[in-house]
Amino acid sequence: MDDRALLTSVRAVIGEADILDDCAVLPCGDRCLVLTTDMLHATTDFPEDMTDWQRGWMAAAVTLSDVASMGAEPVALLLAAGLDDPARLEEITKGAHDCCTRHGGRLVGGDIDHHDELTLVSTALGQVEPAHLVRRQGARPGDLVCVTGTPGQAMAGLEGWTVHRLALLEPQPRVAAGRALGRAGASAMMDLSDGLALSLYDLAAVNRCGFRLRHEALPRPAGVPEPEATAFALYGGGDFELLFCLPPDRLPVTGVDCTVIGEVTGEDGRVLLDGVPVERRGYEHRWSG
Amino acid sequence: MDDRALLTSVRAVIGEADILDDCAVLPCGDRCLVLTTDMLHATTDFPEDMTDWQRGWMAAAVTLSDVASMGAEPVALLLAAGLDDPARLEEITKGAHDCCTRHGGRLVGGDIDHHDELTLVSTALGQVEPAHLVRRQGARPGDLVCVTGTPGQAMAGLEGWTVHRLALLEPQPRVAAGRALGRAGASAMMDLSDGLALSLYDLAAVNRCGFRLRHEALPRPAGVPEPEATAFALYGGGDFELLFCLPPDRLPVTGVDCTVIGEVTGEDGRVLLDGVPVERRGYEHRWSG
Repeated sequence: MDDRALLTSVRAVIGEADILDDCAVLPCGDRCLVLTTDMLHATTDFPEDMTDWQRGWMAAAVTLSDVASMGAEPVALLLAAGLDDPARLEEITKGAHDCCTRHGGRLVGGDIDHHDELTLVSTALGQVEPAHLVRRQGARPGDLVCVTGTPGQAMAGLEGWTVHRLALLEPQPRVAAGRALGRAGASAMMDLSDGLALSLYDLAAVNRCGFRLRHEALPRPAGVPEPEATAFALYGGGDFELLFCLPPDRLPVTGVDCTVIGEVTGEDGRVLLDGVPVERRGYEHRWSG
Repeated sequence: MDDRALLTSVRAVIGEADILDDCAVLPCGDRCLVLTTDMLHATTDFPEDMTDWQRGWMAAAVTLSDVASMGAEPVALLLAAGLDDPARLEEITKGAHDCCTRHGGRLVGGDIDHHDELTLVSTALGQVEPAHLVRRQGARPGDLVCVTGTPGQAMAGLEGWTVHRLALLEPQPRVAAGRALGRAGASAMMDLSDGLALSLYDLAAVNRCGFRLRHEALPRPAGVPEPEATAFALYGGGDFELLFCLPPDRLPVTGVDCTVIGEVTGEDGRVLLDGVPVERRGYEHRWSG
């Protein structure tokens, strides 16, 4: 059973509409609030050579990235820390604080607890003008599909390519890019945390569309030989880059460093790279149960 | 090192003002938003005979109680669940959902993860008119000090008094009472999750005031003999009742079932019960480090 299967049982309780996007969306006066939470813990999410500052940074980055993917501006961050050693709190807090200082939002509180396994849960609140809110739903055939940065870098870092290690350890949430893309009229957006291939299939399912990608256009981690480079770019997780669609006449978007990797098609559920179906796999938690 | 000592190191990073209250407070148009997160996990927070529905309920209740203590109305709840067995998710989600249905707010999303130890982190967002926001700071000498419900019930339930077991397993966040008290002009408020004595010392420190309590007035768990009943009421944790101060002319508050237990004094840091100092102890996480 994977996360997506599990979500089916949750849908029955909290409703379909609320779990389509990277954040929940709540009206608030003339603004929309967006709200998201992510749990990270030692065995699954933190490479052993990370510093505690980097762990705190990453905990903040993952939810700021969710806020960015809605076209929203981060407002506040909470950090709940389950600590095996209380002495770790200060560096973890500094890391989360510094990520907010760099990318947006303010660390305003949290909770602390003793835990056998270091567990960090961050929650981010953002806001956005309704006209600039971007959801996963909204892509149309003929739109371009694009990514910021280079997908697969975090995976390359994990697999021993030291030049890409920092992309894994200190992900940069694309807050400024997300805001600019919301203002520029991106039609659909999500972050790449589960990998490009899986994210494309998620977008295809929500939009009942397909994607045709060009291999030549796909950014791949520098210095990694093929076929690994392409595999990392398609199936590697942990990149907190943005995947988005938008009408061709909206490009370029000032201040956004992105690459057009293909286009949206009407072929429901088909994700093709140079005409060949992309495997539907990526980073998912797997359960023994 | 206890939680309060740990907070000192966090203050240096995120600032004093943000961690005085049960929630962070954020302006949003003509409203204030309040935001809070709490981590609960198997070994520390969940009695073994709890059902998963009750675990989900409690996870929601603890943050809804924080929202209530600010005089605010819950808007949304997120639940991050670290699960040892994915089959537990459905009942946990239902419990959290049902607590929201009963007391306010809507479960709008969350995160799921595999975790060796069941770990639930809920985050609640609330809103309140600025005039009705209640903080810990604001109590004045001459105000009355009051509690909702009966402090010590959860402790009695934990210690084997089966009649009080449900107070431990299914705490009821005092959302409606908190709203009414905010509108009625309560001068200071917090919830009782750490126990009455410790909460009074916290309020005393923030307000540079003291408290004189009358033993006769103190509600104690029914059926528990003395001196346990008084000890449970003063030092037991896990009650999600409200502790608040307000000027005498504001009582009674329609719809709020509460007890006046004493009054606010100008005796900085002194908490007296029938003239005798109350011990400064209660429910705190203790660290071996």
